[in-house]
Amino acid sequence: MNIDMIRAAAQRLHGHARVTPLLSSPFLDKIAGRRVLVKAECLQHTGSFKFRGGWSAVSMLSDDQLMNGVIAYSSGNHAQGVALAAREHSAPAVIVMPLDAPRIKVNNTRALGAEVVLYDRATEDRDAIGTRIAAERGLTLIRPYDEPLVIAGQGTVGLEIAGQAAELGVTQADVMVCCGGGGLTSGIALALAADAPDMRVRPAEPAGFDDVTRSLAAGEILANTRLSGSICDAIVTPQPGKLTLPIMQAHCGAGVVVTDEDCLRAMGLAYERLKIVVEPGGAVALAAALFYPEEFAGDTVIAVTTGGNVDRATFIRALETL
Amino acid sequence: MNIDMIRAAAQRLHGHARVTPLLSSPFLDKIAGRRVLVKAECLQHTGSFKFRGGWSAVSMLSDDQLMNGVIAYSSGNHAQGVALAAREHSAPAVIVMPLDAPRIKVNNTRALGAEVVLYDRATEDRDAIGTRIAAERGLTLIRPYDEPLVIAGQGTVGLEIAGQAAELGVTQADVMVCCGGGGLTSGIALALAADAPDMRVRPAEPAGFDDVTRSLAAGEILANTRLSGSICDAIVTPQPGKLTLPIMQAHCGAGVVVTDEDCLRAMGLAYERLKIVVEPGGAVALAAALFYPEEFAGDTVIAVTTGGNVDRATFIRALETL
Repeated sequence: MNIDMIRAAAQRLHGHARVTPLLSSPFLDKIAGRRVLVKAECLQHTGSFKFRGGWSAVSMLSDDQLMNGVIAYSSGNHAQGVALAAREHSAPAVIVMPLDAPRIKVNNTRALGAEVVLYDRATEDRDAIGTRIAAERGLTLIRPYDEPLVIAGQGTVGLEIAGQAAELGVTQADVMVCCGGGGLTSGIALALAADAPDMRVRPAEPAGFDDVTRSLAAGEILANTRLSGSICDAIVTPQPGKLTLPIMQAHCGAGVVVTDEDCLRAMGLAYERLKIVVEPGGAVALAAALFYPEEFAGDTVIAVTTGGNVDRATFIRALETL
Repeated sequence: MNIDMIRAAAQRLHGHARVTPLLSSPFLDKIAGRRVLVKAECLQHTGSFKFRGGWSAVSMLSDDQLMNGVIAYSSGNHAQGVALAAREHSAPAVIVMPLDAPRIKVNNTRALGAEVVLYDRATEDRDAIGTRIAAERGLTLIRPYDEPLVIAGQGTVGLEIAGQAAELGVTQADVMVCCGGGGLTSGIALALAADAPDMRVRPAEPAGFDDVTRSLAAGEILANTRLSGSICDAIVTPQPGKLTLPIMQAHCGAGVVVTDEDCLRAMGLAYERLKIVVEPGGAVALAAALFYPEEFAGDTVIAVTTGGNVDRATFIRALETL
């Protein structure tokens, strides 16, 4: 992985991915006690940054590979990102999703043109199903984070942050990124190391699912002890990626861990002060920026709100924190 | 009023107002039966386009005028837009608001540094109070729409639409604009007449408060018969402006009228598909674009979502339409 791969991804994404705005509000600055800039990646196509990685990977496939199609395992944002990127390349897409995935996510993925293959989490093995289908049809697997082309696509968020912050005169900041497997965090870290070397990326994670924070502190891959029980399900992954952790070790500061309640409050404030819709897992970085001022020394913190695909009941819970 | 005034306003606003994104979703295209592009002006500073007009006017004041300060009458978006623009010019701002204005709006306006003067709608005359305070303190009045510098500021939305749509290859479209007094509608119409002459602006209004639609059809100023009773209160004004109506007559197509229920549905879809928060009066144009396909002939409609300052209870009503 290197910065040239991210710049090449940015060229492929140009005119296809959205350049999302860098938002702010004096009311949020007051809460945080410093300037807060919010990279609103929830406004990306399909409602999350995942479209960037999907497009970056699909756009590098050969004509034969596109004709055969792609496959991804995901119940959420990666599914929709890959599905739309594939459709816009006229490539078939198969998404393997659990039977108990929310119907709205299954329907959205189908509406974006993908074939959804459902499996039973209790009795079936996702990898075995995916591998069999991929082999039978000659599909190309698009991994969600431990894949250089995907990391390169997510890293384009970092190029945009560097440019947009510089326009505001900001070159020094902690950059909080909602972190699951680390594809986005490592991509942004590489981009900022090149284009804004006085910025420092720091992963934000939900309490109890802080595998990256602990792995960075320990210097080795540590896994989460469980995989459910947070409303931030979109960013809960078993452990840091083999590709992403070394990049984060080289470039990132310490992680910050927040509670589910912090996320709901951050979602409420994003609604009230920025007029954007953020999902719980997409609000982790903003929650860290707003509610953990003791974690920061500088006068500016940048937070990436990574997604906005949230069900109505959870969003209403966030509104009730206001 | 002419295009040069809008271009000059754009120069003054550069680096201060936000360039808001032009959003879209295949799900909205499907509902409308054509391509829908959404100019998300709810993401502007203070949560509405009004900051543009406020900045445009305040930035033209002399040092003496700035030192004395400005005054505006508004219970809503114009108040906050003028308050922030004044604060960023280090100018005092007095905002005259009704006693029964929602406390959150009063508090927000104060938090932006303005002095709020409350009056009793039943027993006091707003204009008399404002005129007296302005005279006593030498304040400059910033009118909400019938003011060339304000129209010029709002018109910068049109310059951005022309540029952003052209990047997508779109040069022909109906452009729906939520219309109160007509400042934004006439400003965008002037801008597009210059920069995208194959686009046509059309005002969108709430049913029962369609003074502009009727005035355009009749060729003369017609007033609304009442001034309350719509959830779109932010865009209910007594009648079209003396400056704005002739511009709209010269450049706009027929108005489209939508119901409050249409607005709530459009707000719900903007939440679900675009991840933006839109207030009822800011959703009128999107509602027209989505739910009145018979009003349009071309393959693209652009809708401006003009604001996002909505109370929680109303927003939950919108979510319940999903």
